[in-house]
Amino acid sequence: MADRKKYLKKTVKPVEIKAGANVEDLVRRMGDTAFQGRNLSTAVDIWEEMLKTRTTIFFGLAGAMVPAGMREVLVFLLKNRYIDCLVSTGANLFHDIHETLGRYHWQGSHQMSDTDLKDVGIDRIYDVFAVEEEFNIADRYIYEFAERLEARPYTTREFLSLMGKDLSKKGKAEGIVTAAYKAGVPIYCPAVADSSIGISLALKNGPDHLIFDLIGDVKETAELAARAKATGVIYVGGGTPKNFIQQTEVTATLQCKDVEGHKYAIQVTADAPHWGGLSGCTFEEAQSWGKIAKKSSHTTVNSDATIALPMIVTALATRMKKYKRALPNMDLKSSNKVSKRIWE
Amino acid sequence: MADRKKYLKKTVKPVEIKAGANVEDLVRRMGDTAFQGRNLSTAVDIWEEMLKTRTTIFFGLAGAMVPAGMREVLVFLLKNRYIDCLVSTGANLFHDIHETLGRYHWQGSHQMSDTDLKDVGIDRIYDVFAVEEEFNIADRYIYEFAERLEARPYTTREFLSLMGKDLSKKGKAEGIVTAAYKAGVPIYCPAVADSSIGISLALKNGPDHLIFDLIGDVKETAELAARAKATGVIYVGGGTPKNFIQQTEVTATLQCKDVEGHKYAIQVTADAPHWGGLSGCTFEEAQSWGKIAKKSSHTTVNSDATIALPMIVTALATRMKKYKRALPNMDLKSSNKVSKRIWE
Amino acid sequence: MADRKKYLKKTVKPVEIKAGANVEDLVRRMGDTAFQGRNLSTAVDIWEEMLKTRTTIFFGLAGAMVPAGMREVLVFLLKNRYIDCLVSTGANLFHDIHETLGRYHWQGSHQMSDTDLKDVGIDRIYDVFAVEEEFNIADRYIYEFAERLEARPYTTREFLSLMGKDLSKKGKAEGIVTAAYKAGVPIYCPAVADSSIGISLALKNGPDHLIFDLIGDVKETAELAARAKATGVIYVGGGTPKNFIQQTEVTATLQCKDVEGHKYAIQVTADAPHWGGLSGCTFEEAQSWGKIAKKSSHTTVNSDATIALPMIVTALATRMKKYKRALPNMDLKSSNKVSKRIWE
Amino acid sequence: MADRKKYLKKTVKPVEIKAGANVEDLVRRMGDTAFQGRNLSTAVDIWEEMLKTRTTIFFGLAGAMVPAGMREVLVFLLKNRYIDCLVSTGANLFHDIHETLGRYHWQGSHQMSDTDLKDVGIDRIYDVFAVEEEFNIADRYIYEFAERLEARPYTTREFLSLMGKDLSKKGKAEGIVTAAYKAGVPIYCPAVADSSIGISLALKNGPDHLIFDLIGDVKETAELAARAKATGVIYVGGGTPKNFIQQTEVTATLQCKDVEGHKYAIQVTADAPHWGGLSGCTFEEAQSWGKIAKKSSHTTVNSDATIALPMIVTALATRMKKYKRALPNMDLKSSNKVSKRIWE
Repeated sequence: MADRKKYLKKTVKPVEIKAGANVEDLVRRMGDTAFQGRNLSTAVDIWEEMLKTRTTIFFGLAGAMVPAGMREVLVFLLKNRYIDCLVSTGANLFHDIHETLGRYHWQGSHQMSDTDLKDVGIDRIYDVFAVEEEFNIADRYIYEFAERLEARPYTTREFLSLMGKDLSKKGKAEGIVTAAYKAGVPIYCPAVADSSIGISLALKNGPDHLIFDLIGDVKETAELAARAKATGVIYVGGGTPKNFIQQTEVTATLQCKDVEGHKYAIQVTADAPHWGGLSGCTFEEAQSWGKIAKKSSHTTVNSDATIALPMIVTALATRMKKYKRALPNMDLKSSNKVSKRIWE
Repeated sequence: MADRKKYLKKTVKPVEIKAGANVEDLVRRMGDTAFQGRNLSTAVDIWEEMLKTRTTIFFGLAGAMVPAGMREVLVFLLKNRYIDCLVSTGANLFHDIHETLGRYHWQGSHQMSDTDLKDVGIDRIYDVFAVEEEFNIADRYIYEFAERLEARPYTTREFLSLMGKDLSKKGKAEGIVTAAYKAGVPIYCPAVADSSIGISLALKNGPDHLIFDLIGDVKETAELAARAKATGVIYVGGGTPKNFIQQTEVTATLQCKDVEGHKYAIQVTADAPHWGGLSGCTFEEAQSWGKIAKKSSHTTVNSDATIALPMIVTALATRMKKYKRALPNMDLKSSNKVSKRIWE
Repeated sequence: MADRKKYLKKTVKPVEIKAGANVEDLVRRMGDTAFQGRNLSTAVDIWEEMLKTRTTIFFGLAGAMVPAGMREVLVFLLKNRYIDCLVSTGANLFHDIHETLGRYHWQGSHQMSDTDLKDVGIDRIYDVFAVEEEFNIADRYIYEFAERLEARPYTTREFLSLMGKDLSKKGKAEGIVTAAYKAGVPIYCPAVADSSIGISLALKNGPDHLIFDLIGDVKETAELAARAKATGVIYVGGGTPKNFIQQTEVTATLQCKDVEGHKYAIQVTADAPHWGGLSGCTFEEAQSWGKIAKKSSHTTVNSDATIALPMIVTALATRMKKYKRALPNMDLKSSNKVSKRIWE
Repeated sequence: MADRKKYLKKTVKPVEIKAGANVEDLVRRMGDTAFQGRNLSTAVDIWEEMLKTRTTIFFGLAGAMVPAGMREVLVFLLKNRYIDCLVSTGANLFHDIHETLGRYHWQGSHQMSDTDLKDVGIDRIYDVFAVEEEFNIADRYIYEFAERLEARPYTTREFLSLMGKDLSKKGKAEGIVTAAYKAGVPIYCPAVADSSIGISLALKNGPDHLIFDLIGDVKETAELAARAKATGVIYVGGGTPKNFIQQTEVTATLQCKDVEGHKYAIQVTADAPHWGGLSGCTFEEAQSWGKIAKKSSHTTVNSDATIALPMIVTALATRMKKYKRALPNMDLKSSNKVSKRIWE
């Protein structure tokens, strides 16, 4: 049957076990298998392609990744500029600040009595524990940091950059916020008030609390996407970081800018498309919206990020020893210039 | 074995099939079964208990629930004051505005070619279609509505309330934003910029775009929680709405107010705890944080909300014909008064 | 844009809440929504279509559905011949026998100490409890029933039919095995030894324990499928029941019989396709194999069956009051005649 | 707060990225993190512990693991005796035979038209393709192999061992069935008829097709469990393999043998407990039944096995270079001796 041949290009090659194998080698060979193992391998290939071309790489971080021990992975990505723009939930940034201030998350269990934990002042995040009182140290730091700022609206990017500068002096360890500051990587936090950062700022008496300029964030990220030669996106979890990065292409389109959708896309998710939410939706669905380019390289890795992310980044780091990346322009001065709207 | 008896109080009663059975009857009998069917039945019982006591009920709405046909369920909940405060993703509100302006979502399929859909200007949300150009009508409405506002920061609650008033005159159909306005139910949208609402506002040229006062939202919701005789929470999906409502108890605690955690809690979710995220976490975990009271009634219904929500609310409506609810005080004037912080 | 119209045939109609609404009415209106709510509604339509045409209906039952209170739903389906052939896990049949012998499952909790439960002789099935000693009564019944059978191989169908006859006399309540016997509905249990049925039979000393003729089961089910005017399949969960029914079309094809794949198909599942297993796979995938017909009506309802199944069957029962079904021929005498193999 | 200390023993140590890191090193460091990454690391530790003690290791294999490229992992486990007894679905064994006969699975896509695939004779397993005609070669092999066997009932273990012997001569590559035969590892297939093995045997005309002695399988596995110094279980997916191995402890208990539940347990699963099924249930639940010992080491890794399994086994192989394992007695002669039943 002649027609059949076009479907039969490459056989599945059963993955061999090699004692002592390195991660990059194993991940590469997973590319010859199937299901999520193959997708994980493809994710490394796509990210590598982003790094080899002059692609602006957006990274969306959701889920309790810092408590789960992914902080150093992010620091690595920032320091080595494997990513150019970070969009995060507030919680991950708060937990990062907590650790940067010298405190810890603890290995716990998801099978403890939570009312007992409450009694001793321990907050549980699945199988991770944190000491409530120690969180208050970070709360207070954020509150007092904001007190020192002049009274005007701040984009979350500017707020976090200033905090990165401040923490670089005060902090006891390198973290996400400090490493991003040093590397010149902007961090956005579209739901900043929906976290202990927001809570800390809400402890201020009277109406003159800190004001975030969220629409400024939208404009800036659209500008970064619109000016890029090409954009790539990497999502760990869904939530606001994924949607916020996805919508840069929609915003730029409505601003009559010449964009075609993100060209490279990776997501590591435990969600599924059939619930209809944005967190679990496919990149194909995103193509209908123009968020992902019609011609694009993309893959979804259905996996807990605590497994997939260290593997992917270790494999990538192994490969990237050979390359030097050309960095995209991340300057943010022109972002308030919207010349035109789609209905005009 | 004497000890065994304490575990064996009620038998599972196999649910009988009755032609013509009404929803309330079936849901009640599901309470004698197990797994998620029993949880769904328990959810109705807990919500009924909230309505019978003077409980302030917070409702978190995530997922593409308006495109999926859940808009009238929300309108019903608002009109009949089965809920007192709504926290939503921006997308659900945008899609609501779109329908209020007389446009539609369409029954589609998740198995279409998304590049073909792109070519004809259709955006896909799993098995729902929407016409991109029609979305632009809502974009423009939001843009022009904001142009008419005086230049000052707005909490999302105030912004959405003003929009509810405006749409009540202009709109072609009753929707979530308008019904909430009429019922005096505040709507909060902690990630408002992360949606087409944010995109629309970002189409404004120059730096004088609309500024949201997110920290004001945090203060207000903490105030609503702190003053309530008791609070109840209902989550459809997770995301920012769940976290934002959960954190009211943490904020109030840090403000040295006398709170004990939400007393009633229901979540309808397709997520699971073992990924460690806030969206899928158990109410037990939330007890360690003090977000949920140590003594509380709570249940998690693992189900697509498009199945569970209409069932739960229909059953509830059937039961509530007999009751008249005493409404909690939702006045919002005093929310900027934070007298004390936990470290003082 | 002219091309767009073909995609826009029916709008999503938001489901209204009606106090006192009956299940059939709500389910029908869910058909105008989206996501799994719509699929659930479609499932009722497809099953109704099976009942209106002379379709042989196979039903696959996996998951702990009897402990979870779904036994009477099955009894209803059997008594009223909404299904023509049942394929089940052994556990569901064992739990059915346990209840038919007058014992119970109990409403428990998934948050008990399992080592405490062990100490008092209680077996847990998520939030259901059962008394270990009482299970032994069913174990003994099965053992002694088998002792009374003449020594020869039995298909699981024959074994379960004889047991249905026996239990109809001895049992204290109507159950699945007895109702199937009375209704002339064959039950198959392809993994019969992988359950307490198998355990009970393994308590026999020496080599002369009962022998099952599994290949006879394969032949019979292929025969039932091959002779049918059309076949429909309904799967609650996946596992061996789903695969065993799916493979009837493959077997019949290899026997050079004229089959085209199942014409109607419904599955209620909590699994997902992206893990690659048969339990979660789509009916589209099954079309590549010829298990599902190229022209077929099919839907997947992603839901816990304890919610979806009572709703679907109640809605169906409400509709079917008007119809009288023409029953397919379920006679099983000719099933050992395989005239030809595909390689001949 | 003195009480708090007992919960705070070990901090989460963020996993560092090291270019060129080997798998064992990364997996070990994942043990200092959280969520599923930590569980994966724990799985390696538990399996290592099994290999260092004289533990009889049962391995349950479900899901389309051979098409997905996991065949060589299994061959490695068998050859090196990291496992002592394999319980598998029929499909995995059939696909293994297919490859042993020199045929392939192909890297495909889950987004093809399945009706087009049907037209060209390709069967799809998520993103893997196989040629229908080539499957028929394996069908025919199985059919003709069975023709050569003397007419008497066979346990699946005996049948598969004889086939392993035969294929060792005829096969073109080492596979699971052949490697198990050579290593003296018994393979059980409790749902053997529910697969292409069963289909092939059903192509025989007349009533004298092959008869499997499933109860013999139950007796043998209970015997293997009862005689072991300690037992360990490893489940890839759930289904019949998991249940069949779990039930060995129940069978042995009912036979009045001295067992205490499996002492070590690992499962890699994409299922969740809250659906109530056996595939997704926790090892804690299994403790209530006595399937898992009250004192036991166990972990659940929520992950696609195509990611987790190669990582776990590579890490294990790296560690095991230093050890020589003492093999348990897998002799199977005495298995029909059941001296006593629990009700006697």
